Amino acid sequence: MKRLASAAVLLAATSAGLALAAGPKPEQEIEYRQAVMTVIGRAMGPMGAMAQGKAPYDAAVVKKNSALIDTLLGLPFHSFGPGTDKGRPTKADPKIWKEMAKFNESADQAQKAAAELAATGGEEAKFKAAFGKLGKSCKGCHDDFRMKEARG
Amino acid sequence: MKRLASAAVLLAATSAGLALAAGPKPEQEIEYRQAVMTVIGRAMGPMGAMAQGKAPYDAAVVKKNSALIDTLLGLPFHSFGPGTDKGRPTKADPKIWKEMAKFNESADQAQKAAAELAATGGEEAKFKAAFGKLGKSCKGCHDDFRMKEARG
Repeated sequence: MKRLASAAVLLAATSAGLALAAGPKPEQEIEYRQAVMTVIGRAMGPMGAMAQGKAPYDAAVVKKNSALIDTLLGLPFHSFGPGTDKGRPTKADPKIWKEMAKFNESADQAQKAAAELAATGGEEAKFKAAFGKLGKSCKGCHDDFRMKEARG
Repeated sequence: MKRLASAAVLLAATSAGLALAAGPKPEQEIEYRQAVMTVIGRAMGPMGAMAQGKAPYDAAVVKKNSALIDTLLGLPFHSFGPGTDKGRPTKADPKIWKEMAKFNESADQAQKAAAELAATGGEEAKFKAAFGKLGKSCKGCHDDFRMKEARG
């Protein structure tokens, strides 16, 4: 039985090793998280203009873009794993990997804020506060963990 | 009345001009559509492994990833407007802007295939056919309109 258990452990370890080996490379993780952020940024733009009164309020755009952001914010924070601090040019501050708990907390807050904005369903009366909270959350994390210039 | 109509036309034209001037630059459009495709590619990966029998079927992953792809495929094809054929390195074949009707038809087919896959809701019996159709649609458009090497 002990031998069988060991074989099972070995098999599991080998599978994990293979899965790891077959997983995305650091440069792919960096490219992926940057890509997600680019798409999120584009979705934020029109809502930023509305929040600043530079564009008329458009409930359909808010509903669509906030749902998209809510979905997308669930993706990039899985791609900051060990070893993904370098591999291609990135603005990700090396602090992220030293202060992962704080970084994850910021990521959680952003996801919550995105969910709250999406939950307004484009209702204008709730927009400014919810969008402001999300923007503040994005900015806070960028101030703490995003460098001004790309490195690597 | 004629004068008023002319003023309205002028105003509309000016607004359109301003909107255009304030819109994304070609390099931003290229970056954006590439970003969307990167995120789609990542979502396709695990389903490709399942379709090839290299990974066990996971209904939750299929449901989540196919919904994401369905949403995302609605985004990039608005970013192939006039003048976005160059501005930063791109594999987009210049043919796209000469054969826009054919390109749009391919894009429509891909979006329909993505919607059909998402509509299966992760049901295993329907997966292979729906995923195969989407994959074929992606490949067809890439064969026709994506260059092997980036240009520009």
